[in-house]
Amino acid sequence: MTNKAIPSANKAIVMVSGGLDSATVAAIAQDEGYQVIALSFDYGQRHRFELKAAQKVCESLSINDHRVISVDLRAVGGSALTTSEIEVPKAGVAPGIPVTYVPARNTIFLSLALGLAEAEQAKLIYFGANALDYSGYPDCRPEFVEAFTRLANVATKAADSADDQYEIRAPLMTMTKAEIIQRGTELGIDYALTHSCYDPAENGGACRACDSCRLRAKGFLEAGVADPTRYV
Amino acid sequence: MTNKAIPSANKAIVMVSGGLDSATVAAIAQDEGYQVIALSFDYGQRHRFELKAAQKVCESLSINDHRVISVDLRAVGGSALTTSEIEVPKAGVAPGIPVTYVPARNTIFLSLALGLAEAEQAKLIYFGANALDYSGYPDCRPEFVEAFTRLANVATKAADSADDQYEIRAPLMTMTKAEIIQRGTELGIDYALTHSCYDPAENGGACRACDSCRLRAKGFLEAGVADPTRYV
Repeated sequence: MTNKAIPSANKAIVMVSGGLDSATVAAIAQDEGYQVIALSFDYGQRHRFELKAAQKVCESLSINDHRVISVDLRAVGGSALTTSEIEVPKAGVAPGIPVTYVPARNTIFLSLALGLAEAEQAKLIYFGANALDYSGYPDCRPEFVEAFTRLANVATKAADSADDQYEIRAPLMTMTKAEIIQRGTELGIDYALTHSCYDPAENGGACRACDSCRLRAKGFLEAGVADPTRYV
Repeated sequence: MTNKAIPSANKAIVMVSGGLDSATVAAIAQDEGYQVIALSFDYGQRHRFELKAAQKVCESLSINDHRVISVDLRAVGGSALTTSEIEVPKAGVAPGIPVTYVPARNTIFLSLALGLAEAEQAKLIYFGANALDYSGYPDCRPEFVEAFTRLANVATKAADSADDQYEIRAPLMTMTKAEIIQRGTELGIDYALTHSCYDPAENGGACRACDSCRLRAKGFLEAGVADPTRYV
């Protein structure tokens, strides 16, 4: 039997990408008293370097249970992050949904987190969605989190037990990037371990020009925290 | 650019597992006038043989666009279908949710179908969920399909255009297995190409004893259609 899970009210699944936001979420989940099962995705991302960062983040937070699920989103296509044939924009954050949007990515990732939660009998999923300093992705909005929560509670075995519902917690939703960095700094996060760049050099050096680099750098500046990012 | 998709009102994504139900759904989608993009999943299933059946089904229906997305649900665990360490039950269909339930599987599969739909600018996803002659899975119920549809329309780029919503169509939902077989037979489906067994022999021979084999055999019997299944 691999299904060794025992019911545990204090287990939580935390999606850890290797980026700044999700590292902060993992520390928040621990601070809120949960035993964290970290979950990362090897999805054909251009910035696969982030998986190394995810591992370092988990080590630094003493998270022993870190799963990496492979899901090949290159077969879905439609994003600059999953094909080298669409360029990552470098001209600055523009209005609208950018080409780095991966169709249904957070829906797919939350679904896999839900499967893991059900298998592990965890009822809580933490996720670093942010509706302020973000890149205009539809699946980072509060309405999305609410709709997924409703779905989770009819999609699973727990559907019929009203007092035992799944909860999706997105603690960064209304925080600015600067507030996120301040909170993580209080919790002792070493942001030098994290990786945000969409289009890194082979050694992981950040490009400084993609939306993700720009939002990160702006966050450190506004937070008054020294930016530990290793640029190209 | 791989993102060559042009808006197309008559494209539909159809999840084709290789089984009897989804083959029927693919034929129904064609009969309803849609150009079918078939989608299968290589998810670490014990009965991976079904992918060969999916390919044959697509060929027989002249579906030229057949995608197979790899997603490793063995990393999620919790099901007899994704580990050899939990046995597939062979004693007959029992009440309750069986160990062949894969946590959040249809949520995961529909999420991936949604990503493909968005990338291909298709607005319709067909899916073979059935609430009658099924195995007691929570993610095969009408409430699940409704909740997923709501989610799809806030999770994606199309979120803000009210007249261009995603639709999840589950045409088998209230049909008996016998009715499904009768409908598929009318549409010319060759069910000999399909595979249903959860625990097949290496050559694909069906075990005759798992829930899926039992529901299939009962369906052919009640439909008055000769059962073309190749048993072990």
